Order: sequence, then structure tokens, then C-alpha cells
Amino acid sequence: MSEAISPGLENVNIKYTELTYIDGINGIMRYRGYDVNELAARSSFEEVSYLMLFGKLPNYDQLNEFKNHVLSNMVLPDYVLSTMKSLPKKSDALAIMQTAFSALSSNENNYQWNKENDKKTSMAILGQALSIVANTYRIKEGLDTVTPEAHGSYAESFLNACFGESDKEKVRAMDAALILYMDHEIPASTTAALVTASTLSDMYSSITSAITALRGPLHGGAAESAFKQFLEIKTPDNVDSWFQKNIIEPRKRLVGFGHRVYRTFDPRLKTFKEYARSLARTQEQKNLLEIATKLENLGVKNFGGKGIYTNTDFYSGLVFNELGFPLYMFTSLFGLSRISGILAHIIEYVETQERLIRPRAIYNGPGSMEYIEIEKR
Amino acid sequence: MSEAISPGLENVNIKYTELTYIDGINGIMRYRGYDVNELAARSSFEEVSYLMLFGKLPNYDQLNEFKNHVLSNMVLPDYVLSTMKSLPKKSDALAIMQTAFSALSSNENNYQWNKENDKKTSMAILGQALSIVANTYRIKEGLDTVTPEAHGSYAESFLNACFGESDKEKVRAMDAALILYMDHEIPASTTAALVTASTLSDMYSSITSAITALRGPLHGGAAESAFKQFLEIKTPDNVDSWFQKNIIEPRKRLVGFGHRVYRTFDPRLKTFKEYARSLARTQEQKNLLEIATKLENLGVKNFGGKGIYTNTDFYSGLVFNELGFPLYMFTSLFGLSRISGILAHIIEYVETQERLIRPRAIYNGPGSMEYIEIEKR
Ligand SMILES: CC(C)(COP(=O)(O)OP(=O)(O)OC[C@H]1O[C@@H](n2cnc3c(N)ncnc32)[C@H](O)[C@@H]1OP(=O)(O)O)[C@@H](O)C(=O)NCCC(=O)NCCS
Ligand SMILES: CC(C)(COP(=O)(O)OP(=O)(O)OC[C@H]1O[C@@H](n2cnc3c(N)ncnc32)[C@H](O)[C@@H]1OP(=O)(O)O)[C@@H](O)C(=O)NCCC(=O)NCCS
Repeated sequence: MSEAISPGLENVNIKYTELTYIDGINGIMRYRGYDVNELAARSSFEEVSYLMLFGKLPNYDQLNEFKNHVLSNMVLPDYVLSTMKSLPKKSDALAIMQTAFSALSSNENNYQWNKENDKKTSMAILGQALSIVANTYRIKEGLDTVTPEAHGSYAESFLNACFGESDKEKVRAMDAALILYMDHEIPASTTAALVTASTLSDMYSSITSAITALRGPLHGGAAESAFKQFLEIKTPDNVDSWFQKNIIEPRKRLVGFGHRVYRTFDPRLKTFKEYARSLARTQEQKNLLEIATKLENLGVKNFGGKGIYTNTDFYSGLVFNELGFPLYMFTSLFGLSRISGILAHIIEYVETQERLIRPRAIYNGPGSMEYIEIEKR
Repeated sequence: MSEAISPGLENVNIKYTELTYIDGINGIMRYRGYDVNELAARSSFEEVSYLMLFGKLPNYDQLNEFKNHVLSNMVLPDYVLSTMKSLPKKSDALAIMQTAFSALSSNENNYQWNKENDKKTSMAILGQALSIVANTYRIKEGLDTVTPEAHGSYAESFLNACFGESDKEKVRAMDAALILYMDHEIPASTTAALVTASTLSDMYSSITSAITALRGPLHGGAAESAFKQFLEIKTPDNVDSWFQKNIIEPRKRLVGFGHRVYRTFDPRLKTFKEYARSLARTQEQKNLLEIATKLENLGVKNFGGKGIYTNTDFYSGLVFNELGFPLYMFTSLFGLSRISGILAHIIEYVETQERLIRPRAIYNGPGSMEYIEIEKR
């Protein structure tokens, strides 16, 4: 064993994966070999989830069976809905999501990991996740909870569960967002899920564990924080002075820029940017888009030289907002999409590389100490 | 970056620590320099928790203030108790615990990690944990839930909350168990909590994440499984034949033996063994103790040569049983104790070594694939 620590496990490979390929230099990202932007343009969340979970693109029958199975699992037990409703009104959306998955884990005594159970449980989780996230939104908004109805696609069912309606372009954008955020190798949330799964705990507990990490401001919250910058700037005219005063002068970081892996534009950005433009319908949305565009140009001009470019979260918030979601839902939407990738990772790990995750620490504390009774301290 | 993976992160150091020192060759274990068996004999859970969290043994005033703060936090909000009660009756005890902590995390929007908040929150969590675990037991037993009352010590308050009574020797044994299980460097549950905390998520979410991992049969369940062996054997006369037929012949592993770190007896074993003997009051308890002792001798004789010796979990279940706890509570009792160590680890990590935990994976999937429309698959 080496006597150095590996800070943040940055240079440590925790597993092999056939899921996501990232070329950070050339800005390429693929799921099982397929370019993510092409999937976002031509495929659907359910098709890509099938690809990730089962290894290849489905034919018609496989896809229909998969989708039916997922969408027949959108009924949540009463104790899950009542738990979600009983949490304090100001709860973080992710706290509600995480508690709902934890409550569902109570049915999973002695979960047996094997190909058959893993497939069945993943499909159930995808259906339940749709319902959990839609109802999180509804509870936070003071609306009645619902059992979502199956519509044409996962994305359409989700938008309808949230808003009672959807249109074709919004469904396409929702689908694209769900595909683009589905997986990104081994960020902290996936790592947490892997650790939990490596003890052969159950899948619901693994998802719970992932969400506890997603909640952290260093992980899931970037789309929300990026969007807050645009709100703070208010009008396109303010972009230059805001940038000067809030980023350049205090030497602060622009949120939505930079990435541990990419040294160029995040490839997923392209699709998000297109939808941010095509869905900007109100004056307010067009205003925010113009602010974002100007701010991006300044960011690239100032930081591009260091390999710091726009990441996905810079534009995804605009799309979520245009779809009708409030700020507090952005990270949950990311989470809804990512659950699919996390399930694929834990299944891949347990089925092919299972080993209890148990790192070490280097002790740098005191040597042997003598216990002294409290009277003498 | 190396092109090999680190299976189970076994040879990876994730942090520095001043908390727990383990010498697996000589069978020594210390908390901040103090021998664990000495602490178990002379100290208390609250004193050792103070040591772990705040860096040194407290004086009288510090200890009283700490204990009062912890024990004044045993009131759980209604929505936590009602959530715990609403889960399916057959829920795993750890599922209830994990959901309770997740529910409590709903009050932690934007938790700010700093010395003051971290101390205050840890003390609150220790108090709430006592109440959560005691009420988990009560709910599973069909008893009314309670708000625990403060008695002389943490251990005494806990036993009283569970059973409505306690005696001095049981309180001592409970205290010793809580001390011995408090920390053990970086097992999977602590790793999961570190990953969550590294995103600057909140402390309740970090504990939730730890429990999701503790639940796995490869991690927290060993005391329960070891005890099940004794139950299965039934009488001391059966030990030899059971061992031959269930371990030697099928080349299976004896549970409660072997450890990734120790190559000799687990040092904590000594204290557990003493209490297992002194608390064995009923005929059934004496019978189980005799079975365990004979089985241990066989294990050491057969596996000691490979460095495989008795670990703590071999005897701790006997002690938990003698204290009056059913089998299904063993892992939760371990968890109650371990929460203290996990809090100390995440505080140490965030306050002194903070870095987002984000390992990598090695891609070994297909190269660029061409998307084919579903009609043509
Ligand atoms: C994501 C992030 C942590 C990756 O950082 P990294 O690749 O490890 O880069 P470093 O922290 O080593 O920084 C390298 C340089 O780029 C600068 N830099 C990095 N991100 C920057 C940003 N968002 N804005 C301005 N400058 C930035 C650093 O200040 C540093 O400059 P220096 O060399 O002059 O000191 C970082 O880019 C960041 O904090 N981004 C903002 C938050 C965000 O958008 N997160 C979402 C990512 S999914
Ligand atoms: C804890 C454990 C995983 C540690 O294993 P490890 O140190 O990595 O040891 P290995 O798996 O490399 O095994 C080394 C040898 O000891 C044997 N061995 C390990 N644990 C054994 C056990 N509990 N009973 C019998 N033989 C055992 C192995 O079969 C192997 O023998 P071999 O070399 O002849 O094939 C293992 O001891 C175990 O599974 N124990 C039982 C479960 C248990 O009590 N867990 C609680 C631990 S806190």
C-alpha cells in the first residue's frame, strides 16, 4: 500500500465500465458507443435506458414490453405518498425524493442480486421515480398528489403527471434532457450508490445513497446556481458590469463553466442550447437566454485559454425553466434522469466486478496515550 | 492515471485520520491514542464520543454540557415518528432507521459546514439516534413509541427507552458495546458517508447514506449471522458435527472469523467475551455461550494457521441477546454506536481535507456505434 492519500479519489479507477465513454479533450461522449447528441435527437429515454440496462438497443417488442413494465410501476404505496406529504413544507425537493426511496427500501429485506431480479427491480424503480419526482413537484406546489397515467412516452407521462398537459416540443426537450443527463461515468452520487451496492444492500438503498450525494452543492446543484446568476443579472445590459464585479474582480468562478474531465465545450451543451433557444417563448425567457448567451461569450473569452469552457449546467436550467419547472426542481430533474445510469452502474458492478468497497485511511494521530480519570483532567 | 482498477479500493487511502489506529498484526486498536478495551472498561459512550468529535477527553463541565446537549435532543418531530410507524411491519430495522434520518434531513437545506454547526449538529444527531433506534425496536415489537427520558448515561437512557428498565451490569455492557463498535477506520458505511459529505451535502444525509451501506449483508450483518449459527447448532454436543458438515466439508466460511485487517484475534473480542460470560443468566444463554466457545476453539484450530481468527461479531451477538435484544436489532445497535465514529470522520474530512470524491472508471465498451432506426433492428 502506498503511504499517500488519493485526494477525492481523482486518479483512482473504481471499476471497468461499458456504459459511458468520455473524451474530455475532443468533447465526445457516448453511451455504449452511441453519441449522446445523436441519441438525444433520435431516441427516447426509455430506449436509452434499455440500452444502458440491458446492453443493446431494443427492437419494437422489447421496447414496448420495457416501457409497459416501467409505466405500470408508477403507483406508489400509500405510506410513501403520506411520508412525502408529511415532511416539512420547506423541505428540499431532493430530501423528499431521498426519503421516498428510503421508504420504498423497507420492502427489500435480503434483496438477492441476480440478472432477473436486477432487471425487474430497475424497471420498477424507473416507474416509481417518475411518480416520486412528479409528486415532489406537486407537493411543493400545494397540488394534489397523483398516480401518473401512462402516455406515449416516459417524458410525456412525466410532464403530464406534473402539469396535467404537455406539447410535442416540450416532450422532445424533456426526453433530450433525460437522455443527456442519464450518465456521466462515476461522479459522487454514482460512487455513493456503488459503495452501498458493494455491500449487497438493495437497489432502493443504493439510489437513496446516490441522492444524498446529489444534494450536495458541489455536485447536483450547478444548473440551479448557474440559473441564479442569470436571474441576478436581470437584463442583458448588466452582463458586462456583473461579470466584471462578481467574477473578474473578486477572482470568483463562473458557475456552469469548467469541468474535471472536459478541457473544451461539454458535448451535451449543443443540444441543450438548441432547446433553450427553440423553447424560449415568453419575453422573460428570451431575456434570460440573451443574458446567458452574452455571459457565455465573456466566459469563453476570459477562461477558454485555461481549458475552462461552458458545461451542460449553464444551459440546462434555461430548458427546465422553459418546460415550466421552478428553480428548486432542477436538481431533482437531473436526478430523475441519472437514476437510470446509476442503476446501470450498480448492476454492472455487482454482476461483473463485485467486491466490497473498503478503502483505508492513513493514521496521523497521537501514539499510545494513557487514560486519566476525569477527576484529574 | 494508472490504467488498472483498484478493486474494492482495498489499497487506496481515502484520507488522513487522527481517529482510529489499527495494528492488524499485533491486534491493537486505539481511538486517538487510547486503547479501546481500556476505554470500554473505564469510560462511557458520551465521553468517548466527545473524544472522537472534539479531539480530547472532556473535563467534568465539558462532559456534562455535552451529555445534556445530546440527551435534550431525544425528541423526534411527529413526522419522523409517524413515518417510522407507517412503514410496512416487516421492514428491516435498518430501513426504518435510514428513513428516519432521511426524513430528518428535510430540515437541512443548505447546511453550512463549520466547526460550530458541525458540533451542534453532531450532538443533536446522537440524541436523535438514540430515540430512532429505541423506537425502531418498540415499533417492531408492537409497543408504543416513546420520547426517551434522560437517565444517568447514554447507555442507561437507551436501555430504559427500549425496555422501561435496566440494571447496572447491563448498562456497563451496553456502554462497552457502544464504545467498541464506535469506529473502525473506513469500512463501507463510513466510505458512503464520506462520499456524501464530500459534496457538502448535510450531516443527516451523510448518516442516511452510511446506513444504506451498513444494511448490506457483506457489511453490518455479521453479528446476526454469527449468532444464527449458534441457534442452528442448538446444543454444545452438535458443534463438532455441525462444523464438519457445514464448514469443513463444503469448504464454507465460518461467520465471525477472519477480517480484512486483522491477522490475529480482533482486540475488541476480549471485552465482548467477558460480558458474554458475565451476563449469561438463563439456561438458554449459557447454552449458546457454550456452543460459541466450542465453535471458536474449532475455528481457531482449523483457520488460525492462515491468520484467520475470531472477530468481534462472533461474541457481540451473545451480548446483545443477553441485554434483551432480538436478533433483528443487532445491526441497528452496531449502527447506533458507529454513528458517532462516522460523524467524527466526516467532520475530520470536511474540516481538514475537503475534496469532492469523484473516482474514474476505465471504459472497456464498444467503440463508435452507428445508430440504427428501430424499424431496422
Ligand atoms: C468544475 C470545477 C471544480 C473543475 O475544476 P478543475 O478542472 O479541477 O480546475 P481547477 O480548479 O484546477 O482550475 C483551473 C483554473 O481554471 C480556473 N477556473 C476553473 N473553473 C473556473 C470557472 N468556473 N470560472 C472561472 N475560472 C475557473 C481556476 O481558477 C484555475 O485558474 P488558475 O490556474 O488561474 O488558478 C471548476 O471548474 C468549478 O468550480 N466550476 C464552477 C462550478 C460548476 O459549474 N460546477 C459544475 C460542474 S459539473
Ligand atoms: C472478512 C473476510 C471477508 C476477510 O477475508 P480476507 O482477509 O480477504 O481473506 P481471504 O478471503 O483472502 O481468505 C484467506 C484464506 O482464509 C480463508 N478464510 C477467510 N475467512 C474465513 C472464514 N471466516 N472461515 C474459514 N476460512 C476463512 C479463505 O478461505 C482463504 O483460504 P484459502 O487461502 O485456503 O483459500 C473473510 O474472513 C470472511 O468472509 N469472513 C466471514 C464473514 C465475517 O465474519 N465477516 C465479518 C467481518 S467484520
